[in-house]
Amino acid sequence: MQTIRRLGLEEAEILVEGARRRATEIGIAMCIAVADESGNLVTFVREDGAKPTSISIAIDKAFTSAGARNHTTFYAEVSRPGAPAWGIDGTNGGHFTAIGGGVHIVEDGGAVVGGIGISGGNSAQDHDVAVAAVDFLTARIPALTTKSPS
Amino acid sequence: MQTIRRLGLEEAEILVEGARRRATEIGIAMCIAVADESGNLVTFVREDGAKPTSISIAIDKAFTSAGARNHTTFYAEVSRPGAPAWGIDGTNGGHFTAIGGGVHIVEDGGAVVGGIGISGGNSAQDHDVAVAAVDFLTARIPALTTKSPS
Amino acid sequence: MQTIRRLGLEEAEILVEGARRRATEIGIAMCIAVADESGNLVTFVREDGAKPTSISIAIDKAFTSAGARNHTTFYAEVSRPGAPAWGIDGTNGGHFTAIGGGVHIVEDGGAVVGGIGISGGNSAQDHDVAVAAVDFLTARIPALTTKSPS
Amino acid sequence: MQTIRRLGLEEAEILVEGARRRATEIGIAMCIAVADESGNLVTFVREDGAKPTSISIAIDKAFTSAGARNHTTFYAEVSRPGAPAWGIDGTNGGHFTAIGGGVHIVEDGGAVVGGIGISGGNSAQDHDVAVAAVDFLTARIPALTTKSPS
Repeated sequence: MQTIRRLGLEEAEILVEGARRRATEIGIAMCIAVADESGNLVTFVREDGAKPTSISIAIDKAFTSAGARNHTTFYAEVSRPGAPAWGIDGTNGGHFTAIGGGVHIVEDGGAVVGGIGISGGNSAQDHDVAVAAVDFLTARIPALTTKSPS
Repeated sequence: MQTIRRLGLEEAEILVEGARRRATEIGIAMCIAVADESGNLVTFVREDGAKPTSISIAIDKAFTSAGARNHTTFYAEVSRPGAPAWGIDGTNGGHFTAIGGGVHIVEDGGAVVGGIGISGGNSAQDHDVAVAAVDFLTARIPALTTKSPS
Repeated sequence: MQTIRRLGLEEAEILVEGARRRATEIGIAMCIAVADESGNLVTFVREDGAKPTSISIAIDKAFTSAGARNHTTFYAEVSRPGAPAWGIDGTNGGHFTAIGGGVHIVEDGGAVVGGIGISGGNSAQDHDVAVAAVDFLTARIPALTTKSPS
Repeated sequence: MQTIRRLGLEEAEILVEGARRRATEIGIAMCIAVADESGNLVTFVREDGAKPTSISIAIDKAFTSAGARNHTTFYAEVSRPGAPAWGIDGTNGGHFTAIGGGVHIVEDGGAVVGGIGISGGNSAQDHDVAVAAVDFLTARIPALTTKSPS
């Protein structure tokens, strides 16, 4: 039997608040999604004016970072043609994405408890907002951070 | 050219707050989704402990009530075997649902501006929470209500 | 080798015009789709204000009536639980629909050359508009009519 | 509450007429789709002889250009292996496409009100027809144009 640590709605809402603060700073309307350690959606927010196509991309980034225990930027590298994970994007019913903007959340540098996915800007902007959201969470709950892609 | 009225994140968050208050009263952890008048997701919340299978059902109920301009309970009636819309559930890529718990939002009794979908209890409980959410919204923004199924 | 008779865009546009005239008469904004004898879409029109969920339902009705060589109302009867075609709706990747509003087009009472699908009202209204569209076509091209369900 | 501007069927039909004129000039039977600002289909035309596989590609191009607020050619660049949006095609249930031939429509250089998607030739021809369709619209309704990819 297992005991699982999982971020709850409270932590997810802190992540959303952090993401929205950074999105406002850079002036881009964003879609923001948070998934739990199983990849299931916890919360989602589409800011007024965010692109409709970003809805499912943000949810996919949260799913991927949480489920694959990594930044989605990591897969941008390894999923290139000829690279070791070539073709991993598009798996999981099309929901695994290698576009930057998904960041996993770890507890005390250990177990992954969820992930956040951002879509609305370019992938560098999306990643920046996702990292800012996690930093905002860490400032309030120091045990929750992320780890560099590996 | 058309000019469309659409609920924004501000109204969606009021709906979520209203839904959560009622969910707490009846003691059931709920999934809560809000869609805009085109059926696209605006916000989603999964309360801690809500069933994983309720995630997509809540989103589908919001999509259906917004897009079909009706309560999903309406389709529970007309989609029975032999009834006029028999088989309408399962259309739209499987996202059209006839399960109670989806309620559309109308502005000044006229144009549909979005919909809310609830899943987590039985369909009567889900519908009750959706209606309570709209009542909570109407108390704050009187121009936004729903209409009886028809 | 086969020589196929198929309605072209010219006939499809006559069907759309006939459908729109009837939709205006009954005061309901409709989605109108025309498929060829292979079930592939020829043309589609969403009138301003028609429900978003009607888009794919209209296309499915055109696909079903053309491909199954029948009125979709026929399948409302035979697809009831226990009836001979119980479960046929939902086949074809979910695109086979038994909801009234799809009417096939036959040439000289013989080969099916396409179908029209209407969605936006209730199924009786949708069927009425589909039949009116075919009548409008027949008045201009007498060789093209429909046949009663069988 | 938000107030949204959206192209209606009238503007969509002007786009279709413009696309058909250009398609005739270059001698290629085209599929032509127009989506609204939410990505939902407004109208579709398959010219006689156009390829069956172009039906869904044209619809996807209209969806993508409208929903992502850009030319689909923009994504041809940024979705190459190693580029920032590598893998964005195939998201949104497989409907996001990076193939040229989708062009968004903006009102007064500002809000995106819809998009047009063309499929039938190669991607350069498809893009050419889409741009010609928007030029045809702009000549009649100067407030409606497109913007260069960015």
